[in-house]
Amino acid sequence: MAYPAPVEALIKAFEALPGIGRVSAERLTFHVLRSERSGAALRDAIALVLTDAKRCKECGNVAEQELCGLCADEGRDATTIAVVEEPRHVEAMERARVFDGRYHVLMGALNPADGTEARHLSIHALLDRVRRGNVREVILATDPDKEGEATALLVLDALESAGIPDLIISRLARGLPAGSAIEYLHKGVLEDALEDRRAIRRRGRS
Amino acid sequence: MAYPAPVEALIKAFEALPGIGRVSAERLTFHVLRSERSGAALRDAIALVLTDAKRCKECGNVAEQELCGLCADEGRDATTIAVVEEPRHVEAMERARVFDGRYHVLMGALNPADGTEARHLSIHALLDRVRRGNVREVILATDPDKEGEATALLVLDALESAGIPDLIISRLARGLPAGSAIEYLHKGVLEDALEDRRAIRRRGRS
Repeated sequence: MAYPAPVEALIKAFEALPGIGRVSAERLTFHVLRSERSGAALRDAIALVLTDAKRCKECGNVAEQELCGLCADEGRDATTIAVVEEPRHVEAMERARVFDGRYHVLMGALNPADGTEARHLSIHALLDRVRRGNVREVILATDPDKEGEATALLVLDALESAGIPDLIISRLARGLPAGSAIEYLHKGVLEDALEDRRAIRRRGRS
Repeated sequence: MAYPAPVEALIKAFEALPGIGRVSAERLTFHVLRSERSGAALRDAIALVLTDAKRCKECGNVAEQELCGLCADEGRDATTIAVVEEPRHVEAMERARVFDGRYHVLMGALNPADGTEARHLSIHALLDRVRRGNVREVILATDPDKEGEATALLVLDALESAGIPDLIISRLARGLPAGSAIEYLHKGVLEDALEDRRAIRRRGRS
């Protein structure tokens, strides 16, 4: 069925967003058609974000000021940067209180299915930070899934091409998740755990 | 993590749409943050739909004119109205060339999970059409799923409360889908097929 032009245009605009297919885009459009209020609310909220929302000029995370709270915090170790996909990953690491370095938020992961490409991710900003010096280590802390892997490779390539002397590039360890039971873990987890196994006692040489 | 106000507002506006949860709403918001172009496109497309999109004043379907093509077609039987959830259902019935009556498009189905309520569905407009007379039968043609069932009941209630004399209210038949194989059909299908079975030869009385 050919929809009228404005309807088709809105379906297309929704469809261009990550993770929204044709059917969902139609449903969302019909919702706007039947509930003007929620359509107007969305239109205004987008407009406000486009004009008012800030991203930290250092790490790219959403921010209230030019610098986010974490980048403004002089107490944190500026020589170590954890590269994460999204703001919620910063939140998770902070909640766990396991890291006191700085972050770099890519604002997404490579995902051909939902249209997220390298140009959407703030990799240039990361290179700028690292080039400015004073960074000793970049930890790739993307998700251990296909999209996260591809993103980590992309960032790794970019960092290596930049040729910064003495920069350490690491990634989060893979293996058995603490508190789990081996019998319930899937193949990939066990594969990683074996591959990355650590020697705890070396064979004697005598 | 507390997001800055405009960011949180956009997350909330996305979350208010059907079928979008918190995590998807965040992803969509991050996409707008990292791709101003797609955000602006969506904002403009919504604005255009709010100002320009028409719904047929008779059946509620999306339309180019005051009346959609099907309602404007004098050749179609105006005494029979099929009540469907969405424009794509009209399309499916038209493609099948099995119905030459009129439609009424509710523009959704009752769905507490995604926030679609009775007030979102164009039931009043249906009652107005039926009250104007000349309608002999209303066929409830919602989807045979939970949301469609609930919606059909809602429309049935509304029609019955309206107390229109001699109005026939029917629903699409349930049973074995043509071309299927009984061994692969699930319980609900077989249950419907048994429940709605049709006598093809009555037992003799001799």
